Amino acid sequence: MSEVVHAYAAPKAGAPLEPFEYDAGPLADNQVEVAVTHCGICHSDLSMIENEWGMSAFPLVPGHEASGAIVKMGSQVKGLKIGQRVGVGWQSGSCMSCSHCLGGDHNLCSDSAATIVGHHGGFADKVRCDWQFVVPLPDALSAADVGPLFCGGVTVFNPMLQYGVLPTHRIGVIGIGGLGHMALQFANKWGCEVTAFTSSDSKREEAKKLGAHNVVNSRDSDAMGKLKGSLDFVLSTVNVSLDWPVILDTLAPKGKLLLVGAVLDPIPVSAMALIMPQRSIGGSPIGSPTTIAKMLDFCARHEISPQIETFPMSKVNDALEHLKAGKARYRIVLENDLAG
Amino acid sequence: MSEVVHAYAAPKAGAPLEPFEYDAGPLADNQVEVAVTHCGICHSDLSMIENEWGMSAFPLVPGHEASGAIVKMGSQVKGLKIGQRVGVGWQSGSCMSCSHCLGGDHNLCSDSAATIVGHHGGFADKVRCDWQFVVPLPDALSAADVGPLFCGGVTVFNPMLQYGVLPTHRIGVIGIGGLGHMALQFANKWGCEVTAFTSSDSKREEAKKLGAHNVVNSRDSDAMGKLKGSLDFVLSTVNVSLDWPVILDTLAPKGKLLLVGAVLDPIPVSAMALIMPQRSIGGSPIGSPTTIAKMLDFCARHEISPQIETFPMSKVNDALEHLKAGKARYRIVLENDLAG
Repeated sequence: MSEVVHAYAAPKAGAPLEPFEYDAGPLADNQVEVAVTHCGICHSDLSMIENEWGMSAFPLVPGHEASGAIVKMGSQVKGLKIGQRVGVGWQSGSCMSCSHCLGGDHNLCSDSAATIVGHHGGFADKVRCDWQFVVPLPDALSAADVGPLFCGGVTVFNPMLQYGVLPTHRIGVIGIGGLGHMALQFANKWGCEVTAFTSSDSKREEAKKLGAHNVVNSRDSDAMGKLKGSLDFVLSTVNVSLDWPVILDTLAPKGKLLLVGAVLDPIPVSAMALIMPQRSIGGSPIGSPTTIAKMLDFCARHEISPQIETFPMSKVNDALEHLKAGKARYRIVLENDLAG
Repeated sequence: MSEVVHAYAAPKAGAPLEPFEYDAGPLADNQVEVAVTHCGICHSDLSMIENEWGMSAFPLVPGHEASGAIVKMGSQVKGLKIGQRVGVGWQSGSCMSCSHCLGGDHNLCSDSAATIVGHHGGFADKVRCDWQFVVPLPDALSAADVGPLFCGGVTVFNPMLQYGVLPTHRIGVIGIGGLGHMALQFANKWGCEVTAFTSSDSKREEAKKLGAHNVVNSRDSDAMGKLKGSLDFVLSTVNVSLDWPVILDTLAPKGKLLLVGAVLDPIPVSAMALIMPQRSIGGSPIGSPTTIAKMLDFCARHEISPQIETFPMSKVNDALEHLKAGKARYRIVLENDLAG
């Protein structure tokens, strides 16, 4: 029952990826195996290759925005079928017994499994995960486009659901990159008034095409001052420190600053800046399988898709360099050219 | 139509209060005048006397937890009557035309008036405010007990409403003082499992009597460690810096840290501590008149009242010293002995 998977792996921390084969062993009863046609590259793949979080095992096969078709199913799998188009994101399993899992918040399970932590990911001809963590693709969405939705997309879609964004809200999106360019589309179709924050004037027109009604240079203090007290929800997708007091001041009473970008430096929060106008600061991680399904449905209905650049999987190192150099507009997807 | 009000005022910042008379002038069409029988002392009265916030005008008549009976009403007043028992809290007016006022969130109005900012407060035989900011007292509540509810009480009641505390939640209350001792009672009657945090073991038994199911010394790192990831909601009533990462770590996934204590030092927030478990940190100020009314009704139904110590109003300086010395158990109320 052994089975060889053809993949690309980093042999050690920070090293370029190399062709790599491994024996996936027998498929577990609760697993499905997906023949990967496409796999997005997420910034966290880079972090894992560099072992920035100290949880990488080498050789490491990155890739957690995979799409393709189911080719094998274990005996416990329900509701899926061979040949069905699905995607696999960051999370590949959870305990399925804690209050979070039973309550539908699998992404908050403390015993969660990640596709590329202790397992091999989607830069490969095949990837496996718990059947409850593959999500079927609506017909309207292409396998190439859908990959980046499974991690980057749901990371910005999830807080809109979790923190109660309403179509009547004014929403700001900080950082027009891999995550932010999807957030602009979601927020626009959600019915909100959308303000894009960017320090790069070159992205101004593109931000408007993506759904921003207003574009503000976050380094322009006059422009930032004019926004004071006006936004109900600001989503920060960047992982660098910002002038947080200025950002907080753009929030209206009851406004929320939502962090999905993993800023390393602590954010200094003035209690009074939260107390007087009843503001809050929150965060959220990826999203549950149900949330991913809702997002895919929303994308299909509103013709939302990430802007992608494609590379053949065999050019994965070029693609990673492109991402590292900050040149991706806005999300890179690998097309599988591995001999399966 | 002039009218002399007998009061106690601080003649200058930080000075002891002295008997003081002022001419209140004609009553405005939108005002009511309340004959004060009792007035609570709030820590913010001290802050205003000391001019800590730079917005005090002297002579200053403190007092914004007043209760008594309506003795005069302007021509625009509706739904109230002469002789009716009412209370007056921190807020004495608002613009009544912005989206917050029209939406019932008068406490978030940016053009809000405060009882003791630019006006004279309740350490007096009479106090005036906009009719929409007096709240009638349920028969079951005594005028003495009710004062502290109008500022301290609603400050901890309001976030429970605003941030969606449910009876199924586990709630922690930091600081068992003027605010915290009311929060424990609210949380218990709300149906929650209640944990009191205190650094003072002497308050342990009292916290239990007030409604705490558990009492934890916040300096006991073993005890704090055991709470890790367990609380849905932590209400911080203190205005000193805490070991915030340890406090945040007591929160369960989706947990909220709510600040009502005006800590001056910025709180260093790790984005990852919010992102991974979907936690948030928020604040809220006092409460709208409607929220105060709901709180009074809740108190009447559940026989909740602040624990008070009474002083005659003529001993106001002794009362202020008692409060300053941290000896108040838990809230001081002045009984009016002024010649009206």
